[in-house]
Amino acid sequence: MSSSSPAVLTCKAAVAWGPGEPLVIEEVQVSPPQPMEIRIKVVCTSLCRSDFSAWETQAIFPRIFGHEASGIVESVGPGVTEFSEGDHVLTLFTGECKTCRQCTSGKSNMCQVLGLERRGVMHSDQKTRFSIKDKPVYHYCAVSSFSEYAVVHSGCAVKVSLAVPLEKICLLSCGVAAGLGAAWNVADISEGSTVVIYGLGTVGLSVAQGAKVRGASQIIGVDINPEKGEIAKTFGITHFVNPKECNESIQQVVNRITDGGADYAFECIGDTGMITTALQSCCQGWGLTVTLGVPKVNPELTAHYGVFLSGRTLKGSLFGGWRPKSDLPSLVDMYTKKEIQIDEYITHNISFEDINQAFSLMKEGKCLRCVIHLPA
Amino acid sequence: MSSSSPAVLTCKAAVAWGPGEPLVIEEVQVSPPQPMEIRIKVVCTSLCRSDFSAWETQAIFPRIFGHEASGIVESVGPGVTEFSEGDHVLTLFTGECKTCRQCTSGKSNMCQVLGLERRGVMHSDQKTRFSIKDKPVYHYCAVSSFSEYAVVHSGCAVKVSLAVPLEKICLLSCGVAAGLGAAWNVADISEGSTVVIYGLGTVGLSVAQGAKVRGASQIIGVDINPEKGEIAKTFGITHFVNPKECNESIQQVVNRITDGGADYAFECIGDTGMITTALQSCCQGWGLTVTLGVPKVNPELTAHYGVFLSGRTLKGSLFGGWRPKSDLPSLVDMYTKKEIQIDEYITHNISFEDINQAFSLMKEGKCLRCVIHLPA
Repeated sequence: MSSSSPAVLTCKAAVAWGPGEPLVIEEVQVSPPQPMEIRIKVVCTSLCRSDFSAWETQAIFPRIFGHEASGIVESVGPGVTEFSEGDHVLTLFTGECKTCRQCTSGKSNMCQVLGLERRGVMHSDQKTRFSIKDKPVYHYCAVSSFSEYAVVHSGCAVKVSLAVPLEKICLLSCGVAAGLGAAWNVADISEGSTVVIYGLGTVGLSVAQGAKVRGASQIIGVDINPEKGEIAKTFGITHFVNPKECNESIQQVVNRITDGGADYAFECIGDTGMITTALQSCCQGWGLTVTLGVPKVNPELTAHYGVFLSGRTLKGSLFGGWRPKSDLPSLVDMYTKKEIQIDEYITHNISFEDINQAFSLMKEGKCLRCVIHLPA
Repeated sequence: MSSSSPAVLTCKAAVAWGPGEPLVIEEVQVSPPQPMEIRIKVVCTSLCRSDFSAWETQAIFPRIFGHEASGIVESVGPGVTEFSEGDHVLTLFTGECKTCRQCTSGKSNMCQVLGLERRGVMHSDQKTRFSIKDKPVYHYCAVSSFSEYAVVHSGCAVKVSLAVPLEKICLLSCGVAAGLGAAWNVADISEGSTVVIYGLGTVGLSVAQGAKVRGASQIIGVDINPEKGEIAKTFGITHFVNPKECNESIQQVVNRITDGGADYAFECIGDTGMITTALQSCCQGWGLTVTLGVPKVNPELTAHYGVFLSGRTLKGSLFGGWRPKSDLPSLVDMYTKKEIQIDEYITHNISFEDINQAFSLMKEGKCLRCVIHLPA
């Protein structure tokens, strides 16, 4: 713990003033970290589909998005012993208090204290740490990494070695880890099995990588963007299906390729209607559908009872089931040992002042991950 | 295999002529068993809720219901080597061919050849083995045990020891086995865990028994019939909840009792709306809802995506995941060793000519299982 108390600082942040409106780089005031919080100098942050969807559809503004990020601890609040100034960290959009029923179960990442924060404020006091001219600017997932500095709870960050490149591993802060975890923790894909993945963004292609590592025999990727077909192969996709080019239903195509349905289906789009398709394209008896996508509209899913009666399972997950603080270091370690790919998901590197380009690229389906570099 | 070919025989059967109409004991002609089929002299058959629901709502008539039954092999068709005249058997409403992808997987009971037959005919030729004056009388689940004699595929019966009482173990042919299997095979309930069961019929109370055997710490039973409260204790229910007597939602009650949601929820009613309640009453992170009930109306289920995003799972099952031919002998064995209860579910013994009493008792919620005794 630093002996001198950190003060309010002023920095640049990309502020969203309204739904779908281009972000504006503004001067914002950032509070000092409160008890058990840390303030981070953000180094890199990537744009995730969840930021994009929330920016397009949600009502909490002005707001600073961004949750998939890496940085360096600038100061620590009272009570923090785990972090010191200069530590390299990944931010966690869902934290780990290590004391609640969920955390102590050892089998869940649904922390009851530092879980997904949807109201645009910090967990501890339901207030913001950002302001412009004394008016609050709201958070996103209690991270808000589209800013030079961000305040997060110490349970919402994990320390990483100084040796690992922050501009790459920020992707482990959400998307790539979520996909790998869905394949390994949630589905527990077995060797020789068949897999179908709906939506070939970074998350879907990370499921593919996870399936490939596990030795799946068929990995079918489904996406309406024809440009995904080629890049998908890099991550292990063995069959690419574009629904727009099919004369039969997707589930019929998948059932044919897999001779009766895939062992595992993953819904990585965030389209609740697609969950039914996913269920119908995994096999009777033991077919498992894992949901990863977060729907931006119509969060009610409907499915015919019969798909369950015939032995199928629908399993939800957040962040691929990883306990963020406990488990992320092992993923960072796998990256340094070249056991998992991360760099290949980075299609664009963008400077902070051009952050709106990342939004445009995502809107046009032209990117996997855009890594946004904050000023040094 | 008998050297003399079996002939058509005439016997009494309880025929349903229309939806909800009282059954009529009629003289019916029963074909000889066709290749790989056996003809059984039914000894006892119990009335299951599925018979009742199908009788009330389905359109295939005239029909002979009944699928939870025990009997003695009267004759065997060409190619049958597994059974001989005089063998004691349980009928199987869903069979096991032991050759299809599902059967050979070793992890599924969704046989692709002899699975649940819904069209009122036999699997092999889509014809019936019953007739009255040369007009077909349809089957139910390719069993139709509300008859002195029934023809079933040899893959839809399992041999049992001559020593076990057929008037008791007929309950293992469906309901009791389904409940135990849901607890053991599908949910795999762990010691000390918390369980909520929606619907305290024979299936729900068999889930309770399964949970008790596994050492669950809390077993909450939910039923709108106040009379279920007392008998439920016999099977291990520790808390009885009658939604009609609650001032808060069922999920609130369950969340309070279990301090955050049950580890496992079982929907044994066949009400798709109740599946959402079940999901909401099991805990975040690892809560598992198992569906067992078969809805008679509205087979579409709707659930908010959020219940899955927070780590819950919905798992379907048929017959508790038991591979019927492979696994039922072990359950019969457990019964003979007094490791499981069956007798306690038999609230009424009824002679065949009084079969409509069983339907009345079920309609009024006055029974668990009525065992119907066919003439000796």
